[in-house]
Formats: sequence, C-alpha cells, structure tokens
Amino acid sequence: MTIVTLLTDFGEKDGFTGMMKGVIWSIAPHVQIADLTHEIEPQNIRQAAIILSQAAPYFPDGSIHVAVVDPGVGTSRRSIALAALNQYFVGPDNGIFSLILRQAEDRSSRVAAVSLDKPDFWLPMVSRSFHGRDIFSPVAAHIANGRALNEMGTPLHEDDLVSIQVPAPVRTTDGWQGEIIAIDHFGNLITNLNEQHLLHRQRVNLKVGSITLTEISQTFGSSNPGDIVAMVDSSGQVAIAVVNGNAAASLNAKVGDPITLIEPHRNPRESNAG
Amino acid sequence: MTIVTLLTDFGEKDGFTGMMKGVIWSIAPHVQIADLTHEIEPQNIRQAAIILSQAAPYFPDGSIHVAVVDPGVGTSRRSIALAALNQYFVGPDNGIFSLILRQAEDRSSRVAAVSLDKPDFWLPMVSRSFHGRDIFSPVAAHIANGRALNEMGTPLHEDDLVSIQVPAPVRTTDGWQGEIIAIDHFGNLITNLNEQHLLHRQRVNLKVGSITLTEISQTFGSSNPGDIVAMVDSSGQVAIAVVNGNAAASLNAKVGDPITLIEPHRNPRESNAG
Amino acid sequence: MTIVTLLTDFGEKDGFTGMMKGVIWSIAPHVQIADLTHEIEPQNIRQAAIILSQAAPYFPDGSIHVAVVDPGVGTSRRSIALAALNQYFVGPDNGIFSLILRQAEDRSSRVAAVSLDKPDFWLPMVSRSFHGRDIFSPVAAHIANGRALNEMGTPLHEDDLVSIQVPAPVRTTDGWQGEIIAIDHFGNLITNLNEQHLLHRQRVNLKVGSITLTEISQTFGSSNPGDIVAMVDSSGQVAIAVVNGNAAASLNAKVGDPITLIEPHRNPRESNAG
Repeated sequence: MTIVTLLTDFGEKDGFTGMMKGVIWSIAPHVQIADLTHEIEPQNIRQAAIILSQAAPYFPDGSIHVAVVDPGVGTSRRSIALAALNQYFVGPDNGIFSLILRQAEDRSSRVAAVSLDKPDFWLPMVSRSFHGRDIFSPVAAHIANGRALNEMGTPLHEDDLVSIQVPAPVRTTDGWQGEIIAIDHFGNLITNLNEQHLLHRQRVNLKVGSITLTEISQTFGSSNPGDIVAMVDSSGQVAIAVVNGNAAASLNAKVGDPITLIEPHRNPRESNAG
Repeated sequence: MTIVTLLTDFGEKDGFTGMMKGVIWSIAPHVQIADLTHEIEPQNIRQAAIILSQAAPYFPDGSIHVAVVDPGVGTSRRSIALAALNQYFVGPDNGIFSLILRQAEDRSSRVAAVSLDKPDFWLPMVSRSFHGRDIFSPVAAHIANGRALNEMGTPLHEDDLVSIQVPAPVRTTDGWQGEIIAIDHFGNLITNLNEQHLLHRQRVNLKVGSITLTEISQTFGSSNPGDIVAMVDSSGQVAIAVVNGNAAASLNAKVGDPITLIEPHRNPRESNAG
Repeated sequence: MTIVTLLTDFGEKDGFTGMMKGVIWSIAPHVQIADLTHEIEPQNIRQAAIILSQAAPYFPDGSIHVAVVDPGVGTSRRSIALAALNQYFVGPDNGIFSLILRQAEDRSSRVAAVSLDKPDFWLPMVSRSFHGRDIFSPVAAHIANGRALNEMGTPLHEDDLVSIQVPAPVRTTDGWQGEIIAIDHFGNLITNLNEQHLLHRQRVNLKVGSITLTEISQTFGSSNPGDIVAMVDSSGQVAIAVVNGNAAASLNAKVGDPITLIEPHRNPRESNAG
C-alpha cells in the first residue's frame, strides 16, 4: 500500500487539506494518507524543509511526500517532482526540498527531477492560488498509480533547482557559534549544533542568552521540574529544554537567537588555569 | 474503497473525533476516513455549510460526508441523511446542508432525503449530546456497507428540510454591496462577491473599510510583501489578502464587515470625466 | 483491518506524529491509523488516561492503542504493552493505562502485561527522548502483524504497574463533594460526579463557585443561549455548560475546582420546610 504524506502551512480550519485528500483518493483510491503537519508558520519554507527532512526517513521506500508552503503560487515559479532516496517529493520549486537534496548528496544517492508542465496530469481547472489541490495532489496520486515522472514533466538538472540555506554553525576561535533553528510544541529550543560539534562530550560550555549550561543531560526525567537542561534531541540536534516546562517562554528565546559552544580544551579559563 | 469525511466543531483535544472513527470502523472496517475540519467555530452552522459545499466536490462519487455542528442536539430537531450530487450527507436537519442542496438545484440534480428514525442503525446506547458518535457515524458506516437510505429512515420532501441563508450581495445604484463571509487560516478575507459580480474585469473599484482597491491581482506572488491585494480565490470568491501577511489583522476586519464594489461604467468620477 | 490509535501530548506542528505513522506503516502497511488526540496538555498523564478510557470502548476488538505522555522518557521507567478488554495498549508505565485497568477490573476481564525489553522489536536506533517513535510505534505494528506480547517483552504482574488516581467524589454529611476533572473544547466543565451520585434524579442542588443549579437539563437545546445548565454528558459524567457559550470562561472555572452536590432528602432547607 503506497503512502502519500501532506505537509503544508494551510492550518486545519478551512478544509483545504481535506480537499487535497479528496483529489488524491479520487485518482488513487488505495493509498494511505498521513498528515505530517499543516501548522508550518505561513510562508516559512525553511521550517517546512527541516521538518520534511526529519520525517521522510521514517517512511517506507516508495512513499510520496507532498509539501506545499508556496508564497510564489501563481507566479512563474516552477512546480516540480523529485525522485530521491527511494521516495518521491512533489511541490513548488522554492527550496522546500533543499535538505532532502542535501541528504541525497551526503549519501551519494542519485536524484531525478522534473518540471511539472503537463496539464493532463492536473485537475481540469487550475486555480491561481491553490496548486496543492490542483497540481501537486493529482500528480502525487498519479505517481502512486505508477506513472513515471518523465511522463508528467520535463527533466530538470538538480543544479537548476532553487535552493535555500539553513544556517550552519560558524567556527570561532574557541568553539562554535550556532543558533536556534526551531522551537517545538513543548517550547524546546532546537539548535543547529549536533553531537559532532559537541565532540560527543558530555561536559560542555553552552551559552544561550544569559544562561550557561555545563552538561549534556541524558534524559529530561533525570532532572528536576523547572531545571534548564541541554540534551541531544530525537533528531540528533542539541536542544535546550526546561524539564516539564517551556524553555522558549522561560528564556524568552526565539528562532535565530545565538547559541555559543565553547570547546573545553579551548576554554580560556582552562588555558589560564593551565 | 468508500470514503467517509468528518466535519465538526468538536476541536481535536477531547478525543471526540477519534470515537467517531472507532464507531465507523467497527461497522465498516474498509472505509477511508478524511477529516475535513474539526475547527468550525462552535455552533457556526453557516461556516460549516460553506466549507462543506466547497470541499465535497473534490471527493469521488459515493463519498459519505458526516457534518456535525449541532446546537440543537437532543431536542426535537431531526437527524437526516441525504443522497445528492452522487454523494451522501449525514447530520442534523439544521441547515448545515443548505448549500449542498442549492448546488443540487443549480445542476437540476435529484435529491433524496430521509429522517433517521430507525434505532436499529444507531449505537445501542444513544446519549443526549453526542449524536455525531451515536447516530450519524453508525448511519454513515451502514451507508458505506450498502444499506439504502430508505431502510434507515422515513422519506422527507426536500422542501421540508431546514434551510439557512448565506447572505447574497445586494444590488446598489452603482454596483454591489457584499460582505466578508469567512476569514481563512492566512487571515485572507473571503467575500460573497465572485467573478460574475466583477463582470470578469481586472480593473475594479472595491472598498473594504477605508481602503480602496483598483485591481484584481492574478497572484499573491506578483506583488510585494505587505501589499493589500484583491484576487479571486481558489473557490471562485473575491478575497482580500495582505501579501505574506494577515489581512484580518492588518485591516482589523471581521466576518460580516461590508465590502463595496462600484462598477466601472457607473463610477461617478468616470461619468464626470466623460 | 487492524486499527492503531495514537494519543499524545506532541501537538501537530513538528511532524512527530507523522513520523510515528511512517514507522507503523513501514512495519504493518495494512493497518488503519486514527489520531485520538495530540493535544493532551504537556505531561498531563491524568488527562490522557481519562480520554483514552472514554475513547477505547468505541473501537473494535483487536484495536491497538499507543498512548505517549511520557515525562519520564529515557529514565528507568518501563515501557509496557497490555492486552486488556480484547484490545492492546502500548506506552510508558507511568499510570497512563490506570483507568483502562480499572475498567478491566470492574468487568472481571483478565489483563496480560509485559515489560518491553526486547530491542529486536524496536527501531535499530533508539533516541533518549522519543520512545513513541522508536519503541511504542514499532511494537504496536508488530502486534498488528500478529506477534504475541510474550515475544516482545517479559511478563509483568498487573499489580506491579504504576497506577495514578483520578480523584473520586467524597461523601459529605448531606451529599457529595466532587471536582472538575476536565474542560472540553466547548468550555464545558466535566466533573467526577455521575448519574449514580445524582441517584438518577432530575431535581438537584449543585453548587459550582457562587452558582447553584437545581435541575439536570435533558439537552442543551431546550434552554436559552447564555443559560448555565447542568447535564449528563456523552460519557455519563455530570457536566456544567453555558448554552451556546463557554462555561469555563463565563464562570472563570478550572480543573480541580470543587463542585458540591447536596442530596434532596438531606437538604437542610427541605428539612426546615418539612
């Protein structure tokens, strides 16, 4: 049974995501449909790219991911479909698949891309503002039915796709300057630092705002409610959390705020002491 | 594979919509279930009627739509099921299907209606406040299993069904007086004006609050972030949007606010100029 | 077709629940998945226990319920799976299944429990903070595939499971002292009193804050908008509602607030009158 996932910034109140399911099941009645999330911040392509790249690996080969955060809908921005990492990706060519493409590159996995320019595979009437329903959903359903990407669009070179950058940590004289790239439902601060920046150490020196954390906790549960802790989250990123609380609210933190990692052996105080 | 859709004002926090799925799958294990939305404003039958009428056409023939915005639950208001437009509709007789009935009338499509008065097709225990779970879900599942409406209820004449009005634009000496009938997830203002009121023109004179818009934009993407634009939305209605912003917040607008369309050839200034 | 339900405090914005569906369908492609709710208040095990116990009975025999409100994730708290009431339950051993176990006891239904300690049935990599994805989802999928609980864990005695209490009403000299145990999406105040405390009477004396209610209404619809009414809700509990309004907001009420039932024949005023 083929799975189609949906990721959008449409919210759930207006019935838009329901319409997409109706379109998909009208063409491919036997697929399963999973909502990844419809609560991407309006127009936040980067947030969509991050969540898609974290969630897609948990789906089986052959899954088809429809991702629609699409401020350029109705302009000349291309509609695209990709085959990458044994899965399919359908949406606007605005960088939303950048991190999927980076994953493919990291694994030397071949990518095929097409520009969706064959109206035979769309709804008969295409609106100017809802290509998620009128183009991307029917194309995803046709893929589920076994249609080849090349039937539905003109091949594109991967290098011609629009790419967005997710900020990478910057090397400093004594460690790394990172930043908060997301705040999750619990108010945890997700950073762009990962275990490699930590050198897999448990003793650290991590500054966020006026707070310095000196340890990577193994679990939330081993600390006391209200404690501020740093840990490696379920996607491998360094995260700052308040045990049974909301770190974003407690620390008044937001996406883009800096987080500074000072490496133990470069710590000036340690140098002084030595 | 038959599809059942759910549209309610129940929200998603209490497990009510999950119970409905359990009931449906207990009786009809092979249906697919799609949530249209559960975020209808509490008791807002009109909002439910609008969203249902916009979403239903995107589902295949034979789909069964359960719609439950039901302030009269437990009173003498009837429970009904309809066959219309090659689909089925199950819910309270309170006007929630009014726009579906109007679509059927516009297309001269026959409607069959029954009053659901056969407890054999309900759950054994029926609560006084949750007919969505106890009556409408089991009836929808029995329809999916091939039961005829006439087995499950007493035929009703379509004219005996409760009807609600969605305000239509009013003709003025120089154009149309419309209003905002919905505000979507993005804060876009959806009006009851459509392309026919615009006479399919792109140059217009549209007043909302203290703002006058003179053009129907083709896309959001062709304007600058922050611009206030009028466009025809994906359901064919005139909508006012702020590019990459929230029009409802920016213009302090709400459902029911007037929107005035002055037709070009009746525009007094143009007359003066001529 | 086997059903897996998901109940968490993860919210829907981060894609966490989508990942769980990907994991389940990777192992058991033919199950249906229903979201019960993902809007449990963070870490509120009691709220999860109540909603799970209300919703599970509406699902067919053989359904598998995954419930993850898990403040102790990554500590020594056990992961468990239960067979009870002809269904399966998978999650942390923190009391989240307490009310299911009480239902089983009330019906003298046998319960089997295992401690999930066989990593062969988990994802290859297990994070420290997301056992919902890495342990509970794969185990639920293996149950759907017909694996026995005893293959996946070491049997536990039911009495060794962590239990939480949901406050029961307390007998007073002239009735019952209860409390608000939940506030639903509509703002209705759900109490821990039920029809047995009311002695199935319709005339009552029920105090909440400074308000006294003297009648159990049969429906919302028989009163006027804005009226404060007491009724028996769809789960059999006494609830306080404002007709077409929000009782929690109107009465400034919250979970834990007391609600006092004075029994008619013990009512001092009635004694005086007699």
